[in-house]
Amino acid sequence: MAKWIWHPGSFELYHSMLLHNRRTTSKTYPDGTRKSVYYYPMWRIDSPSLNAILEKKATISVAETLEFYSNTDTANMVVDGIAYGVGARVKIEPGEHTVCLQGFKESGFVAFYVKGDVFQTDRTYIVKGDEGKNRHAGYSDYYTDPADNPEVFKFSYKRLYPVSKKQINGGVLFDFGKEIFGKVNLSLLDGKERYVSLGESYEEALDTAYSEIGLNVNGKEHTSGSVAFRYIFVPDIENCEASVDFEYLPLENRGSFECDNEMVNKLWDVCAYTMLLNSREAFFDGIKRDRWVWSGDAYQSYFVNYYLAFDSDIVRRSVRMLRGGDPIKKHINTISDYTFLWISSVWDYYLYTGDEDFVRDIYPEILDVWEFVESRLDSDGMYKRQPDDWVFIDWSSFDSNGPISAEQMLLARAYETTKKFASLVGDSAWEKHATEQFEKIVKKTNELYWNEEKGAFVDDYKSGKENVTRHANIFALLFDYTSEERKEKIIKNVIFNDEITKITTPYFEFYELDAMCKIGSFKYMTDMLNSYWGEMLRLGATTIWEEFDPTKKGIEHYEMYGGKYEKSLCHAWGASPIYLLGKYALGVYPTENGYKKYEVKPSLMCFGKIKGTVPTPNGDIFVSLDGEKVEVLSEIDGGTLILGENKYEIKKNERLEIAL
Amino acid sequence: MAKWIWHPGSFELYHSMLLHNRRTTSKTYPDGTRKSVYYYPMWRIDSPSLNAILEKKATISVAETLEFYSNTDTANMVVDGIAYGVGARVKIEPGEHTVCLQGFKESGFVAFYVKGDVFQTDRTYIVKGDEGKNRHAGYSDYYTDPADNPEVFKFSYKRLYPVSKKQINGGVLFDFGKEIFGKVNLSLLDGKERYVSLGESYEEALDTAYSEIGLNVNGKEHTSGSVAFRYIFVPDIENCEASVDFEYLPLENRGSFECDNEMVNKLWDVCAYTMLLNSREAFFDGIKRDRWVWSGDAYQSYFVNYYLAFDSDIVRRSVRMLRGGDPIKKHINTISDYTFLWISSVWDYYLYTGDEDFVRDIYPEILDVWEFVESRLDSDGMYKRQPDDWVFIDWSSFDSNGPISAEQMLLARAYETTKKFASLVGDSAWEKHATEQFEKIVKKTNELYWNEEKGAFVDDYKSGKENVTRHANIFALLFDYTSEERKEKIIKNVIFNDEITKITTPYFEFYELDAMCKIGSFKYMTDMLNSYWGEMLRLGATTIWEEFDPTKKGIEHYEMYGGKYEKSLCHAWGASPIYLLGKYALGVYPTENGYKKYEVKPSLMCFGKIKGTVPTPNGDIFVSLDGEKVEVLSEIDGGTLILGENKYEIKKNERLEIAL
Repeated sequence: MAKWIWHPGSFELYHSMLLHNRRTTSKTYPDGTRKSVYYYPMWRIDSPSLNAILEKKATISVAETLEFYSNTDTANMVVDGIAYGVGARVKIEPGEHTVCLQGFKESGFVAFYVKGDVFQTDRTYIVKGDEGKNRHAGYSDYYTDPADNPEVFKFSYKRLYPVSKKQINGGVLFDFGKEIFGKVNLSLLDGKERYVSLGESYEEALDTAYSEIGLNVNGKEHTSGSVAFRYIFVPDIENCEASVDFEYLPLENRGSFECDNEMVNKLWDVCAYTMLLNSREAFFDGIKRDRWVWSGDAYQSYFVNYYLAFDSDIVRRSVRMLRGGDPIKKHINTISDYTFLWISSVWDYYLYTGDEDFVRDIYPEILDVWEFVESRLDSDGMYKRQPDDWVFIDWSSFDSNGPISAEQMLLARAYETTKKFASLVGDSAWEKHATEQFEKIVKKTNELYWNEEKGAFVDDYKSGKENVTRHANIFALLFDYTSEERKEKIIKNVIFNDEITKITTPYFEFYELDAMCKIGSFKYMTDMLNSYWGEMLRLGATTIWEEFDPTKKGIEHYEMYGGKYEKSLCHAWGASPIYLLGKYALGVYPTENGYKKYEVKPSLMCFGKIKGTVPTPNGDIFVSLDGEKVEVLSEIDGGTLILGENKYEIKKNERLEIAL
Repeated sequence: MAKWIWHPGSFELYHSMLLHNRRTTSKTYPDGTRKSVYYYPMWRIDSPSLNAILEKKATISVAETLEFYSNTDTANMVVDGIAYGVGARVKIEPGEHTVCLQGFKESGFVAFYVKGDVFQTDRTYIVKGDEGKNRHAGYSDYYTDPADNPEVFKFSYKRLYPVSKKQINGGVLFDFGKEIFGKVNLSLLDGKERYVSLGESYEEALDTAYSEIGLNVNGKEHTSGSVAFRYIFVPDIENCEASVDFEYLPLENRGSFECDNEMVNKLWDVCAYTMLLNSREAFFDGIKRDRWVWSGDAYQSYFVNYYLAFDSDIVRRSVRMLRGGDPIKKHINTISDYTFLWISSVWDYYLYTGDEDFVRDIYPEILDVWEFVESRLDSDGMYKRQPDDWVFIDWSSFDSNGPISAEQMLLARAYETTKKFASLVGDSAWEKHATEQFEKIVKKTNELYWNEEKGAFVDDYKSGKENVTRHANIFALLFDYTSEERKEKIIKNVIFNDEITKITTPYFEFYELDAMCKIGSFKYMTDMLNSYWGEMLRLGATTIWEEFDPTKKGIEHYEMYGGKYEKSLCHAWGASPIYLLGKYALGVYPTENGYKKYEVKPSLMCFGKIKGTVPTPNGDIFVSLDGEKVEVLSEIDGGTLILGENKYEIKKNERLEIAL
């Protein structure tokens, strides 16, 4: 089937530009009025080129008719040197042909669609005159109809109404029952100009002087842009009506999980809903506040996605949006660790999806990122903080002014995955280079940052503070970057040491729990599901929060970044239980790209029984387990069921049942 | 006065993008129909960023009120941290303040305008978060009114009617009397769909199967986009009406020249009109065919401009349009020599205008160009042709597969001017580097390319062909890149040697005649005015042609690039007599930046008397000369009249008259 095509990256640059410019915040002015205002993005936002030229040469053995579509009138389909305009139908005879699509559009970006056979538009068109880079056309699985316009993002809409409404504080409060995202419709008989306050929480909506997000409303009927909320408070009115056009991607949750613990089942559903809300043009961090695309956040959403909707297109879109345009002058999101994670994420994408085309397409852009990264390393090739860098790692207290250990681990991981890309695309020079750098950094990190007295990696070996945080130590476990002996020490001295500051973000719980599951400490994970995620649910969360500190009380939970309600209560990085339960309870994971080979190594953990499905590119894998038997039914070949020392071949579409 | 401001380069990238996408050409299809179609640009066209953020910090001693305008609603004026929307009026008290302008626009580019005093918008706003580059806001002298929108280019329009109309070949032919540019209005009673043929020449308009430019007309009333023509032929109609809305910049010709040779006076006017037509968003090459901005062409227009309209804004616009966006992956216009000329041109701009701000603003972008250029030099630092490079120099036959001498001369010139920029902005590292490279290249070029037997520089020292063309030898004279002894040999063996292929383009006549005037061979120049330019006029030219070969006949003159009428008959690079007569007959030229110091060294040449005016940034200089006396009246200080060995101080606004 033909697809709409464009210059690689144009679609993502365009939609990224739009979405990163949609953030608003509410401000109180010196005269006391409160208004919603545009919030400027924190990093450079690139726009797509408004010109595009793509070409394909091929020899056909059967005549075909080409029908040319574009989203701009200033476009040609040049067939063997003759330029035809939009709407042309051109028959070509058997033989060799060249079709060149070229166009310009004053805004948005140029896209082409050619109905045909060999010459139908798809990835096989190449950017012309592109310094010999042989870059393939951009495309999306979502745009395959000539009536499409890829400038319009394909959301679905559903009208929803409040579950309750009440008069309070001189106005009307609507409750939609749970966190939601969409366009708000208001009917206000008085038609007054006012600030309508939105809230992820009841308290936020009513606290009109402090709510993060609001609508500047003027007139009797109002439809807003897309915003996130659970509650709407319309002040200074006796009665009014509200509804929302819920805006979402109609993603199918192919993954599933069920067990005999109702809290965990509910948590899985809340995580899935959190993911749905954050699955948009790309994976968002959260839907209320900035609604931007953050590399570290997206990195985790990819893993959750592989156990939930398994939508490859959204991963590719997110990766390209994060990459942005050229030239690269700052780290992705300005955060050094987010750049390293961005590189690694492409390898995980390949492992889960097997999409080699995308790796080949993005590979030159990864090398451009490396050029930037390497221009800022120290003489040993280790990461060194530069003036413009934001060293994030996590919201936690690090000794992070110098070259911190967690950054070196992620840099090593980026080299380790790049080594594999280079091998895949046959770039032996980079394969050698990345291998050397990877080995050197792991070795140096172990030499410089390991503190034998503490039995742990310290943040900074230069500062003399010998500060130990969980983060680098977790990476060392997770990526196998240290000896077994040291791993044992880390588990004892860091992970199970209450004196080492606890993780407070679901973001870093992802890494911690992934590491703990990897070493078989499932109880650590399920305890955390109960004490950390479970506690959020008990506090009434309908989606997972950005950060959670069980010691806080009431609206203290909503405070962050110095704002009374600035915390996001629907944050994608909280959905990791879906990944953890899919990978370690159902026990399913690929061992060769695209699940050509995979293993199923289920574990009951603390549950009495579990069952569920894990999606793969070519079919689902169903697993169920209780104290008595394991059952696996898979739609694909290549699997091995592992039960202790025993291994069993999983045959496609044949139920495998093993009594325990 | 406040000016509209934007991210540096946005205005130029935007208008450059529009203009480079306006080219059309006419094609005959397999079914016999002829149509005007979009013509895709030959190099990468960059679009501006659609986000902008500019900031100014200052301390004010008097309160002021800021009034905020923007061409987008998604914009804030953030005053001391508080974001105000478009239309806001904010009073600020004496003290220190920070005003940050930020915005996004889905198409076009973001521009801001603040009425105020110290904080009014102008170049002093700085791009925020720009990797410490301290880039100043972009601006144009044309946009100073809050009602302006810099996305709309400020052309003037005047309705013109044909000077004659006749029925011929079954249709109607209109003659507008001279070359023109504008929007064509047609009234066609039959309303039929047809191809209306335009012609710079009578023959072209009537040759409907081959005319370069035409209009796809359908309906009774038609207004076209802006096109160039003298003749319009509407086929297959008995009667119809035509007019044109002449589109132009209302530039004042501050320069003038008059002598006792009527042909030369007429030539000067034709050159001035050619310049007017090509003075648009930037200096165009020609107005009929591609209407693009070419660096080598613009380079010469700058010099003509300094003796005609002296419009600094159009030079700055042209320089920025040619520079384009980042990253730099190809030479400007893909032509290596055009990149080198681009660098040099900024120095000449500074010399004539004294506009140090612009040099400082563009300097970092010049260094980015050098980074690209130097990445492609050979190990000696000499220019070496790379696969993607177009080595132009001139439309002539060169031995140009290897590293040709003319390129080395222009590369040396680029280093020579960069040395001066670096000194001006205080970049001592680059000053040293550019000086070394400049000296090395001149030395190496003299060593490698000089052929003692031929007494000339050869094109290529490696090929063994020992081919001599005028071009490199002219550059050596013009830029003083060889010894006096060798110069003598060049004049004898190359310039006055009829066996060396003559220059056929006005483009290279510029360099040849500049060099000849520089060494005092005025007769060579005035002979050429008569034999070359004069001959074009005698053939009926109303504007100067792209190329001229006196041996051709009839419509052979219109042929070029394999097209019967592809030659441009209104090409800016033909206007150099204005420069040559101003600089060498009136004899006026700056010796310090911005005419702080200047010389007047008039020459009668072959004329009985001459008089005219040369514009400068701060006033005009009038010069007249006949066999008996010289008269100079200048509106600026700093001048010296030079007559042979004698020098006279020119005092501002005091008539200086010297009897000869």
